[in-house]
Formats: sequence, structure tokens, C-alpha cells
Amino acid sequence: MTAIEKQGAAAKAAALKLMTCGTGAKNRALLAIARALADNKEKIIAANGADMAKARESGMSAALMDRLALNDKRIDGIADSVRQVAALDDPIGQVDKMSTRPNGLIIGRRKVPLGVIAIIYESRPNVTVDAAVLCLKAGNAVILRGGKEAFNSNNALTDIMRAAIKEAGLPEDAVSLVQDTTRGSVDEVMALTGYIDVLIPRGGAGLIRHVVENSKVPVIETGVGNCHIYVESTADLNMGAEIIYNAKCSRPSVCNAAETLLVDRSIAAAFLPMAKKLLDQKNTQLRGCPETIEILGGGVLPATDEDYWTEFGDYILAVKVVSDLDEAIAHVNKYTTHHSEAIVTNDYAASQRFLDEVDAAAVYVNASTRFTDGGEFGLGAEIGISTQKMHARGPMGLEQLTSVKYIIYGSGQVR
Amino acid sequence: MTAIEKQGAAAKAAALKLMTCGTGAKNRALLAIARALADNKEKIIAANGADMAKARESGMSAALMDRLALNDKRIDGIADSVRQVAALDDPIGQVDKMSTRPNGLIIGRRKVPLGVIAIIYESRPNVTVDAAVLCLKAGNAVILRGGKEAFNSNNALTDIMRAAIKEAGLPEDAVSLVQDTTRGSVDEVMALTGYIDVLIPRGGAGLIRHVVENSKVPVIETGVGNCHIYVESTADLNMGAEIIYNAKCSRPSVCNAAETLLVDRSIAAAFLPMAKKLLDQKNTQLRGCPETIEILGGGVLPATDEDYWTEFGDYILAVKVVSDLDEAIAHVNKYTTHHSEAIVTNDYAASQRFLDEVDAAAVYVNASTRFTDGGEFGLGAEIGISTQKMHARGPMGLEQLTSVKYIIYGSGQVR
Repeated sequence: MTAIEKQGAAAKAAALKLMTCGTGAKNRALLAIARALADNKEKIIAANGADMAKARESGMSAALMDRLALNDKRIDGIADSVRQVAALDDPIGQVDKMSTRPNGLIIGRRKVPLGVIAIIYESRPNVTVDAAVLCLKAGNAVILRGGKEAFNSNNALTDIMRAAIKEAGLPEDAVSLVQDTTRGSVDEVMALTGYIDVLIPRGGAGLIRHVVENSKVPVIETGVGNCHIYVESTADLNMGAEIIYNAKCSRPSVCNAAETLLVDRSIAAAFLPMAKKLLDQKNTQLRGCPETIEILGGGVLPATDEDYWTEFGDYILAVKVVSDLDEAIAHVNKYTTHHSEAIVTNDYAASQRFLDEVDAAAVYVNASTRFTDGGEFGLGAEIGISTQKMHARGPMGLEQLTSVKYIIYGSGQVR
Repeated sequence: MTAIEKQGAAAKAAALKLMTCGTGAKNRALLAIARALADNKEKIIAANGADMAKARESGMSAALMDRLALNDKRIDGIADSVRQVAALDDPIGQVDKMSTRPNGLIIGRRKVPLGVIAIIYESRPNVTVDAAVLCLKAGNAVILRGGKEAFNSNNALTDIMRAAIKEAGLPEDAVSLVQDTTRGSVDEVMALTGYIDVLIPRGGAGLIRHVVENSKVPVIETGVGNCHIYVESTADLNMGAEIIYNAKCSRPSVCNAAETLLVDRSIAAAFLPMAKKLLDQKNTQLRGCPETIEILGGGVLPATDEDYWTEFGDYILAVKVVSDLDEAIAHVNKYTTHHSEAIVTNDYAASQRFLDEVDAAAVYVNASTRFTDGGEFGLGAEIGISTQKMHARGPMGLEQLTSVKYIIYGSGQVR
């Protein structure tokens, strides 16, 4: 057995215990984790300091360094979010569709944990705790495989969580961190079909594609968002400008930010200058179709087909003038990553057609795509945003970390 | 583009139309299919005759020949089941969890089709129609890849369905059959990530393993059932004997049949002869642990560890004497394929522990595992029995062939 196989077997054994340990025990473990994080700030900050020093040496950008950094206030924030997860309703054990069949069998569908969840992530060390406690609250064991840049931070956080879980009387192997941060360990995790029930990749498009295409373990695809805002001919133009400005510029690096603006031809000449005025506040680079350039003039670069496929993650926006709703929906359905799409309109039929025909996890009328988020949707917390159709679609909260089990009460029935 | 890629693209285009075509149009297509099957019996029976002739030449067993055969009565049965699917409630368009958020956004979760479903199957030609119409009712396009033994039958059935769908005004590419029945076409279907949303393999353990381990398209694992019946110390022994006899012998080739009998030591000497008396009616071969052999004598073969892992699919039963509930649950959770597991008991606490701790799609108290079936569970029809935890678990009916889409009604909200 390799080290990762042993870790898988230990997680599976822990998952069997978590399956039936009850909400009280899980909440006690979560609150113990919150306390332990607050009590061990120095240890966490020291480990994070080692990661930061390495990052500085390697010439990491200031923006990425900031994502990596942990300090007193950020650790308090992480501990707070753990307490919030403890306060959420536990989905496990809920039974629906229970009924008595004609033969007297009483059949119900009970929510149960998925089992062992593996998370492969590249991002900030807070994900280590956020992901672990959500999995734990839903009764799952979790195997974390974080990026090498944050390894010392992740390891310190995991050690603290494991000790707290043990102290609370649950198996510490409910949470573990893969100690090998080479590419090979990703491949090994993807092959652990005997131990891992679900694998969730969180990170850039390259990582996600690699995992989706190569994992033998079932995967939930997350995150890539090539989102569109379509300003239809009857739209309130001020609303349209505010929405595209918010969707593009409030946080361009996230997956629910807009990447392409589609504008109806009949309003393009009036609308595009209004939108540009707001987008210029952040020096947003526009890449437009010929009509866009004709209306807005020289500051706009010509858009290539490649631009329409791209999640820029930056202050860059592709723009296209379309002739009608049909062309807008066809464009969206061609280039979409099935994340979040919005129409701005005052036409009732257009709003309904957009909701019906656009194939995405979240489809908006007259609102910014930036709301696609577990907290904003009322799920309490999320472990990622699924862009696939199986199992979970859109923000994944506790419910999406569960499976079902049919329970059947009989009195000797045979078939 | 290869022929299969073209088929994928055509199915995807059809799926976009089915997504919004409405229940009435889908039901009209289903009823047209039922009529067309009845009207084209001669054509179907002629095509089936070609498959039967080839099967005879190749020396196929009588049992398999019977599974392949279509006749007047069987075609009527298939057409009837199509009408039953037409009569089921359409899950598409149902909206749940709709609420107004503090910022005024109205957010709901709407049931939508999965998109394009591919089914790879080895079994009887009726699967061609059953699977296609369930997918269609839930608004999905389907790509069928059946076994080469039934190719002429499958092709005739598919042609008739496509013509009926077209006649009813829906795109005929909603249903199509892969024309290449070599192993290579399975691999090609598994790689069609751009076109296929979900792949469901139906067949033997070898096919399912190959698909689960190699598909780039998301898979729902089905069917393999290494099911256990545990007769606990307080069980009604007559009930226990009837249940194991039914679970093993009523139809040994199916996935919800029992493969291993576990018996509590305290009742083994009384119970095993009672069970054997019934099992002997079908000349069931018993493979037992040493204690079983001691109790039942010479007719019982010694069980190997391999036997406890095996889905015999035949009148063969592994038997093991266990010391208590703990050992029984541990045995089940070690050897289970997570399909269906049953306890026979009169002890309340034992029944609850078995329901809680056994990790399977369907867990029974005092009933035969043979009830794990979409019809028996009240789903109306099923496309297979999922033994994985993601997306669907247990019998998969129409609801399990759907995904969700969040629909959001705003009034200019930005974040």
C-alpha cells in the first residue's frame, strides 16, 4: 500500500463511523475546530510565514501573495465560518418519499453522507478548513490535496483540525492532507476508486480539465465561468450598464464574473457608450465586433473568436452586437460554460424564453451574474459551483454533499 | 468528424429542442411510438429472425436465445410499457425551493433534462425501446449502443421510433443507435465529452468496470448486486427461510437476487435445515463455511473467500455462520456491491442498527431483496439500478434522468 492508499483506507474507515455518529457529535467537533484555530494562531502564522518566504523567493506576484497570506484577522474569519457551518441544519437522516406500498412494504428515502470526498485545489489555505468542515458537517470524511505553495499552511491547519476532531471523540482520519504535492499525487488520488466516492477539483481550467478527463473516481466539475450579459432591445439601459459594470468589474477574477456583453443592435448606439463610461472607471479593455468598434471608436480592440471562448478573469470584456434574442441565445448556448447567464430586458416573453432556452446552472433576468454563490442563494456555505448536470448543478451546499439510501420496513414480504 | 461524433452532435441539437418542447409534444411522440411498434410487428420480427438465425449458428445457449427473441406478444408488451411511460407525470419544469432573498431576488430551482444520455447495453432488445422512451419522457436525447447479437432487432426498433418521433413533430435524432458494434465504438462513445452529458452502462460486471474506469463522460454505475440476507438470532425462522428462498430462487439471474446467506450462530442448527429444504426445491448448490457444513452435512461445498465476493447469477448460494450483528454488518460492508441488503429479525435495536450501518442503495428489514426495482418502489419504470452514491442511488426513474437549473428573477440587483 502506498501512503495515499493508506490515507484512503483510513478515510474510508472514518467515513463509516461518521455515517452514524449523529449531529451532536459532528457539531461538537466543528466547534472544537473553531476553538483550536483561534487558540493556535501563532502556529498557523508561523507555518504560513514559511510558505510566504518561499513565495517571495520564487517571485510570486503581490496579488497571489495576498491570497496566500494568513494573519490574525483572517484566521478569526476562518474560525467564524466554521461556527456558521456548525449552526446550519444537518441534512443527514432526513427521510422523504416515505410511503406504504400496496404489498405493505414501507419504503422511504433517507439522506446519507456520500462517504469519502477528495478535494484537489490550488487556491488559498482557507479552502483547507472551509472544505473540510462542510464535508464533516454532512458526515463525510475528506482527503485534501492542496497546492505546494500553501503546503506548510495547509499542513498546520489540518493538524489542528485532526487534533480537535479527535478531542471531540470522532476519528481524526475524517480529515487528512495528502503529503505529496507533486503532480503524481493528483493522479494517484484520481485512481483511488476503492476508497473515494467523489472527487471535486477546484482551481484553474487546466486542472479541472485534467481531472475530468482522467479520473477513475466520479468527479463533480466546478467553476469555469464564461458568463454572458445580454442587454435586450427593451432593457432599461441604465440598469443594463450597472449590471454589466457590476458583473465585470466588482471582482473580475471569480467564476461568476461576466466575460462577454451581448447588445441588441437596435439599442447598441445608445447603450454601448453608457456601458463604456462605467467600464472605463476600471480601465476595462474592450474587445468588440466591428459594429462595436464603429460605435465606440478606436479604444476598442477587435474581438477574435477565441475571445468569445475565454474566461479572462481580468478587466477585459468581449462585446458583440446581435440582431435579436435568437442570435443572443444561440451565441450564449454555443460559448457558455453552463455557469451563469443573464438577460436585461423589459419584455416578458423574452425573459421567459431566455430562462427556458439558455442551458446553464443559473439563468438571470435583470440581475448581475455575480450572485451565483452558496451564501447569496441561501445555502449557508458552499464547496464550489458545479457546472455539470449530474448530481449537483450550481452552488453546492451541504445537501449536495449527500447521497440517499432506501430504507424498507417489511413484515415477511417476498416477490 | 467520425460517424459517432456526428451522431453526438445531432443528439445534442435534438436535446436543445426537447428541453423546451413541453409535455404534450413528448407524450404525442411516445404514443406514436407505441402505435408504430404495433403497426410494424412483421418488420420487427423479420429483423429479429436474422439475429436469431445468427445466434443459432454461433451456438448461443437456449436461455440467451430466449432473451433475444421477439414475438407478437412481446412486442405488444413493449408497446404497452411505452404507453405506461406516457402516462407518468412529467418531472420537467417542476420548481422547488423558490423564495425571495433579502435583496429581492426571487430564486427557484427548476427541474430540467440532463441533455444527451448514452446507454451501453448488452441485454435484450426491449431495452432499446424501454431506455429510449424513458429518456425521451424526461426531455433527453439518447444514444443507444446495443450488443452486436441484437443489432438487427435494435436497428429495426430504432428506425420505427425515429419515424414515429418525426411524425409527431419532434427531432428524430432524439433517439439513435450506434451502427458500429465493435469494442472500439464503446471507447468512442466514452470519449464524447462535448456531446454526451451522462453515460449509463447496463450489462455484465466486466462491461461496467471497463466503462467506469475509462469513460471521460460522467457515468452512472449500475447493476452489480452481491446481495446478502442476514437471519438474526431473534428472527421468525419460517419467515427467514421464505425470504432467502425467494431472494435466491425466484429469479437468480437478476441483480437484486441474494448471493450470500448469513446466519446467527445461536439459530444456525435450527434454521439452516429449514432453509435448505426450500432451496433444495431448485437444487440450489450451497457453498458454506465449516460450521454450515457441520450442520448440513456432505451436500454442501466448502466456501472460498472468492465465493463471498461473487455474484453467482445462478442457483448457487454462499452461506456463513456469524457470531452476532457486528460480525454480520462487518461482513456485509466488506463484500457488498452497495445494491440491496436485508436482515430478518424481531429485535428492534438490531433492525435499526442494520438500517443505519449497512452502506447500500436499499436496506431491508424482514423482506426479500428482490423488491429493489423501479416498479416495486413506485417509480413507474426504471432505466437501471444505480449502485454509486452520486446523482442517483437505487432504482432510477424519470426523476433521476433530470438535472436542475436555478432561475433568478431580478429587478436590477447588483452585488
